[in-house]
Amino acid sequence: MSSTKERLLSAGAELFGRQGYSATGVKQIVTEARSPFGSMYHHFPGGKEELAAQAIRTSGALYGSLVEAVLDPAPDLQSGIRDFYRLAGVNMRESGWEDACPIATIALEVSSTSEPLREACAEVFEGWLQGAIPSFTRHGIATERARELAIALVCQLEGAFVLCRAMRTTEALDVAGEMMAAGVERELAEGSSARAT
Amino acid sequence: MSSTKERLLSAGAELFGRQGYSATGVKQIVTEARSPFGSMYHHFPGGKEELAAQAIRTSGALYGSLVEAVLDPAPDLQSGIRDFYRLAGVNMRESGWEDACPIATIALEVSSTSEPLREACAEVFEGWLQGAIPSFTRHGIATERARELAIALVCQLEGAFVLCRAMRTTEALDVAGEMMAAGVERELAEGSSARAT
Repeated sequence: MSSTKERLLSAGAELFGRQGYSATGVKQIVTEARSPFGSMYHHFPGGKEELAAQAIRTSGALYGSLVEAVLDPAPDLQSGIRDFYRLAGVNMRESGWEDACPIATIALEVSSTSEPLREACAEVFEGWLQGAIPSFTRHGIATERARELAIALVCQLEGAFVLCRAMRTTEALDVAGEMMAAGVERELAEGSSARAT
Repeated sequence: MSSTKERLLSAGAELFGRQGYSATGVKQIVTEARSPFGSMYHHFPGGKEELAAQAIRTSGALYGSLVEAVLDPAPDLQSGIRDFYRLAGVNMRESGWEDACPIATIALEVSSTSEPLREACAEVFEGWLQGAIPSFTRHGIATERARELAIALVCQLEGAFVLCRAMRTTEALDVAGEMMAAGVERELAEGSSARAT
């Protein structure tokens, strides 16, 4: 991928996440990406919607890989979950409460108005769930239950981002992370005792 | 409040929730509210931002009152929680995946760009937490823990809305609701046995 195209996608993803899809104009994207205006329609003949669909998939996949990158090297699953929410909180605070989920804002804005963008968001979310399931099953959790835990993990995170961005405190991320971690810890302990009997 | 003003607020809240703040123009609000264009600036001299700040507070308070309206008459807290998420899912499906949280879209869009709107969203979220705390404490849960559970309840709901809107299935609401309900059921059972000893 050309570096101009990459810069356009990354500038788009950042602006969409911070202020939404509708508030972001093509001009602002090319300015932020330090790219000539023509490069936008060269790389994305379909304009803002085409760029957004690709930006959702690219930034979504990148964000999803963070889940595994934090969960898998942790000494245990519950510590990985705590780390993940804590790092999300640190990142939000350090970015002045701007950097949260790269696609939730768009998902809420466009789900009733742009089918290509809704589909891109749905694909990303499903990819996150599929990507997170092995982080649970490798600890002995059954696949069906692992999907439920992955859904809860993503929902708690997305919901906490909404509250934290508005309330300017990491309280919701702290509470949601601890709640998820404690629930998983208990589930693993019960699973071990069930397997031991 | 005049009925024109009410119609403007309600049309604004609906449009903001469905397609976001930035995508919604004043003209669309007055059309949807079947009101003359001049009524907008008569009731909201500050324009769209002033209307949005009031719409966030009004629709947010209304939505918050649903939490208590569903939780409190239920035979027990866990059934109330299950009912609440189930009704949210029914409502989403029946509205063609449009009707979710009236303020989350705005909260994500404006938190970095409009301080009056961010503050209105933060007030509404804090109001929801304060309003939900008694629904937990009346079952013997300590206030501090009740706040944590209220935060988890709201985060799971907001996050599930993001996923459900994009994925067009109530799976996330179903899973999040069952996870919350089962966690609270266990907590109440442990609390009772702790109190009994």
